[in-house]
Amino acid sequence: MLKTKERLLVAGLNLLLERGYNDLGIQTLLTETGIPKGSFYHHFKNKEDFALQVIDRYMEEVHKGLDLCLGEEAVPPLQRVRNFFEATSDKYSKDGYLGCMLGGLGQELAGVSDVFRHRIDGCLAVIGERIGSCLELAVVQGDLPNKSDPQQLAALLVNCWEGAALRSRLQRSPGPLMEMLDFYFNATVPNC
Amino acid sequence: MLKTKERLLVAGLNLLLERGYNDLGIQTLLTETGIPKGSFYHHFKNKEDFALQVIDRYMEEVHKGLDLCLGEEAVPPLQRVRNFFEATSDKYSKDGYLGCMLGGLGQELAGVSDVFRHRIDGCLAVIGERIGSCLELAVVQGDLPNKSDPQQLAALLVNCWEGAALRSRLQRSPGPLMEMLDFYFNATVPNC
Repeated sequence: MLKTKERLLVAGLNLLLERGYNDLGIQTLLTETGIPKGSFYHHFKNKEDFALQVIDRYMEEVHKGLDLCLGEEAVPPLQRVRNFFEATSDKYSKDGYLGCMLGGLGQELAGVSDVFRHRIDGCLAVIGERIGSCLELAVVQGDLPNKSDPQQLAALLVNCWEGAALRSRLQRSPGPLMEMLDFYFNATVPNC
Repeated sequence: MLKTKERLLVAGLNLLLERGYNDLGIQTLLTETGIPKGSFYHHFKNKEDFALQVIDRYMEEVHKGLDLCLGEEAVPPLQRVRNFFEATSDKYSKDGYLGCMLGGLGQELAGVSDVFRHRIDGCLAVIGERIGSCLELAVVQGDLPNKSDPQQLAALLVNCWEGAALRSRLQRSPGPLMEMLDFYFNATVPNC
């Protein structure tokens, strides 16, 4: 059985993904997990602290996915990047196409909270950097033109993905995600 | 002086863009506009009805921008599309880079409200269709390859824009928007 803190984080992740931050009541979380209020405040200072730790937890999963996909040395680097996003789409599918928590909380909170604004921008930047390193490898191996800027291409991919993830969330469908990946990879690797 | 309903919609638009839906109190809106509660409920059934009418108001502005940019017959169609997004970026700049209200509310509410989910997806679809018509013209005029699917290209552009708008909101910067447009137009019109 999961420890109390872990159970709160897992339940919080699902609730934040579905309902966002302001619509999430701590009481809902406690009722859903059957955990008393005192335990919550033992592990977390307040709701903001909780949500920030949920984001850390979310990022652990993202990094695991990146480790798995980008670390596959037998696979060409561009394909590793594509595999990561396809695996992410599979994850969205399991969640019922609720999109990306970073995009959800980023949109909801960036206007009022610099803490969340910087934290979420930092998370997207870190994902971009890891993908950028893999794209650098693609340049070295001759799969991307020498004039490419891998870090810029990676940031762009992450950003376009987030827009496609919004549309996927609105439509409860993987279509926008796959169309974006097709367009991006066709455009990045011009076969001319 | 603006009429009461118009004042509420304008103030609501700014508040929803900054704070989102759940963090917006009707009382804040009334205090900010100096309008009594009775007047609010004379014009709007409830907060949801109000937010939906704010979205309609937002879309009126979007359509004005589309009319202006896409209707410029002396300008090549692809440039008209680019002009629309550059004008939208200028609008974001005036707002202090708070991004797009459709993306903000879409992310916040799509998990809990099918009303907002469908409404916002519909708004993005309509924008995509109008841009798609302009891209169809670009195909006819030979500025886009014959094999292009203008409607699909347009939907993709709108989706990628929404992701860039999130990042612009997170960074309070136009950078992600302009990088996305450069990438998209370079990719869509391959010069080879």
